[in-house]
Amino acid sequence: MTTDEFFRPKARAPRGFVDRRAPALVAERKILDAVAAVYESFGFERLETGAFEYADALGKFLPDADRPNDGVFALQDDDEQWIALRYDLTAPLARFAAEHWDILAKPFRRYAFGPVWRNEKPGPGRYREFMQCDADTVGSERPEADAEIIAMAVQGYAAAGLPAGACTLKINNRKLLDGLLVAAGVVDSRQKLAVLRAVDKLDRLGLEGVTYLLGAGRKDESGAFTKGAELAAPAIQSVLAYLGAGGGGRQATLDRLAGVVGGSVEGDEGLAELDKIGEALTRLGVHEGQAMFEPSVVRGLEYYTGAVFEAEINLKTGEGGGFGAIGGGGRYDDLVARFTGQRTPATGFSFGVSRLAAALAASGAAAKSARGPVVVLALDNAQMGEYFAMASELRAAGIAAEVYLGTSGMRPQMKYADRRGAPAAVIVGGDELAAGTVTIKDLDLGRQLAAGVGDNRAWREDRPGQITAPRADFVAAVRRIVESGPNET
Amino acid sequence: MTTDEFFRPKARAPRGFVDRRAPALVAERKILDAVAAVYESFGFERLETGAFEYADALGKFLPDADRPNDGVFALQDDDEQWIALRYDLTAPLARFAAEHWDILAKPFRRYAFGPVWRNEKPGPGRYREFMQCDADTVGSERPEADAEIIAMAVQGYAAAGLPAGACTLKINNRKLLDGLLVAAGVVDSRQKLAVLRAVDKLDRLGLEGVTYLLGAGRKDESGAFTKGAELAAPAIQSVLAYLGAGGGGRQATLDRLAGVVGGSVEGDEGLAELDKIGEALTRLGVHEGQAMFEPSVVRGLEYYTGAVFEAEINLKTGEGGGFGAIGGGGRYDDLVARFTGQRTPATGFSFGVSRLAAALAASGAAAKSARGPVVVLALDNAQMGEYFAMASELRAAGIAAEVYLGTSGMRPQMKYADRRGAPAAVIVGGDELAAGTVTIKDLDLGRQLAAGVGDNRAWREDRPGQITAPRADFVAAVRRIVESGPNET
Repeated sequence: MTTDEFFRPKARAPRGFVDRRAPALVAERKILDAVAAVYESFGFERLETGAFEYADALGKFLPDADRPNDGVFALQDDDEQWIALRYDLTAPLARFAAEHWDILAKPFRRYAFGPVWRNEKPGPGRYREFMQCDADTVGSERPEADAEIIAMAVQGYAAAGLPAGACTLKINNRKLLDGLLVAAGVVDSRQKLAVLRAVDKLDRLGLEGVTYLLGAGRKDESGAFTKGAELAAPAIQSVLAYLGAGGGGRQATLDRLAGVVGGSVEGDEGLAELDKIGEALTRLGVHEGQAMFEPSVVRGLEYYTGAVFEAEINLKTGEGGGFGAIGGGGRYDDLVARFTGQRTPATGFSFGVSRLAAALAASGAAAKSARGPVVVLALDNAQMGEYFAMASELRAAGIAAEVYLGTSGMRPQMKYADRRGAPAAVIVGGDELAAGTVTIKDLDLGRQLAAGVGDNRAWREDRPGQITAPRADFVAAVRRIVESGPNET
Repeated sequence: MTTDEFFRPKARAPRGFVDRRAPALVAERKILDAVAAVYESFGFERLETGAFEYADALGKFLPDADRPNDGVFALQDDDEQWIALRYDLTAPLARFAAEHWDILAKPFRRYAFGPVWRNEKPGPGRYREFMQCDADTVGSERPEADAEIIAMAVQGYAAAGLPAGACTLKINNRKLLDGLLVAAGVVDSRQKLAVLRAVDKLDRLGLEGVTYLLGAGRKDESGAFTKGAELAAPAIQSVLAYLGAGGGGRQATLDRLAGVVGGSVEGDEGLAELDKIGEALTRLGVHEGQAMFEPSVVRGLEYYTGAVFEAEINLKTGEGGGFGAIGGGGRYDDLVARFTGQRTPATGFSFGVSRLAAALAASGAAAKSARGPVVVLALDNAQMGEYFAMASELRAAGIAAEVYLGTSGMRPQMKYADRRGAPAAVIVGGDELAAGTVTIKDLDLGRQLAAGVGDNRAWREDRPGQITAPRADFVAAVRRIVESGPNET
């Protein structure tokens, strides 16, 4: 501490890291608790791994490099090994499953939530630390394992508070895309990539733009030209038929897709898997509006090996458009193999917790932000014990309460109570002491009047801004004010 | 992924980091939820800061060094500034309070929980990442702020499940020790240190050993000699009177202490503060057995500036001795000053979450470890939809349930259900399908029989190991088994 006299650091958080206070934390906790309860009802077990993994176990340290990728926060341990903060929850799961495979009851279902860290350029709304919430099943190749994950996502969003119909799970299978490429006669890998890229632009460019990109190419508004996949007309028709196969229920989609990709090994495998997923979803009570087959989903195809899922929010414009996907997942088979050499089937889903919180807020379904405690003013130093006893009585009655602990006068104390979001202030000064009474100020009402809500006169008649109660009855009087809430008369 | 063919990392967690599974996580979550509810009832607001702080803001980067202390996990950001993972929750609070002081309602009460990281040598039970759970009040110099923190700790331990009487808060004030040194005529700083060190050994050496250390010195069993503080006899008597002043209630302790340290400025200040703390505790309903004044507590005196608290567990030997302190705190005034230059009074308490969890387990008061889900066996691939529907019906009735998703036969599936801790296995094979029934195996009973609990014959008469129910009634039949629980007949 000797340097303190010479050196004063500036108080600031590192770039890309954020301080979060009660309203954000209450909303997040509500989501995580609700989703965890759904996961546990499906038999998923919570797992928590450490923040660090060896960089090689994360796949972020290639053997010919002298340090891990820039994308992770890495440092060298005192035994010279590189360790890095996890950048997702899947890589630690793969390490855990590979390490303990022999002792795990298999298939192994686990869920996890916790922060992950990305060493990327921060920007507005782009943090270098954020919450993830994942469920994965390792060791089952059954398509029903995918269906279960999808059903949990559907139930999880509902449990978190999204209104019915606000969210749809879109399901695809990369084997269908492989079957499509076979059906369209695309064998060249460069051409394959061009087709997938064109398909991925459907949302942005529409069918017409995609058609150009599948053919000779497309010129955008600025005049810039993007070379196309140069497919022949029948192949383009196959791709367009594939992209148009969604809608009208899961079975109808499968029937249409069978006409496009059926016949190839890949296509038939993909169709059979989706068929089983569809049946299991139906038996799990997941209806068509909650989870649909959508062949245009091409999310993470370099990563997923079978089924792919994406959760999309359907809020009307102004209600929260622009959230994009609020979660996603799919089947991946190679992650554990990185350690063991054994291909291990796995499937999982990741909730986008902060996007979901934003969507809940926009849809009006967010948890009411936490109200402050009742504040007992400290007006007479000789009465501090009495003030503490009163706060204690309020808490015993289930009402959060605190005594003001500064040394300022009445006005700053009232301002403090207001800034704390207190529903009421409890006042015992000389007059009250002499009379054996307590004055209770209704601060919710004060805030509403200040905000110009309602007709002041009417308010005052049936809900005075301040009441006086006998000391013996003050808890009941505070309760009446607290329970009347900020939005009722 | 091209390197995967050549390089297989070993699956292992970094040294000092631990994977935690459901039982440990359930116990921790119960503690944190209970303590958070108590904190919020006292008006404390949750705050979560990022995992990283600038190393200078942590006080872990002295300006004349070229990198931060070894004790933290630190790395250089791409703008060359050193950032480090927080090693406690107090330093980030100080940074946050200093950064946002102008906009905070003051005094500022906050609680926080989350992992902290220490870059130390790991060992058995010594991790480099662990959970902390803190409450602090910043900006109040009132001793009542200390009392409130103590009352929350008392209520927090009870809410977390510690039985009544299992935990005592011991309270001291470093000003009393300063007053004692004045009373004993100790002015030399080397001699002061020797006295404090001697007092700190009371638990280990007893009064006789401390007496030697206050005087000429002490020879231990091995013959090694420790030089003493070389106090004169009357000064030694003062220290011994001080150390013996505890017990018999808070007021009695204060009265005895007044006779030893009263009269000096420091001693009188300390006595007055403890007097106010004692009165507030009484009004908060904290009785003498829950929080006592104990002058021998010398915890963290280089850090705390006034009141000091320590939570000690009182379990009989064999019930969990050796836990030592399961939490502690005190008043500190200089932490925010490091940034602002302004002395800011603060007081706080930190729960030792993992020690508390261990104490709860030892006292038999730990949360029952999470039971596994009911497992519906997958015996017939054509019936997967039916199995999913049955699991869904169980969940709708509030019973956690899963379908076995592997491809093994009946015996491995039963073994799986047992390893999952399932209370029951639900069996629908050919016979049941033909008869429209469901067989339910009571796995709790099976485990108890295997463990030799009770008389096998008696068990079997009133609780058969397996029952058959009509398909339409199977949920009720499963519920009867699940609710009968693992410990009842």
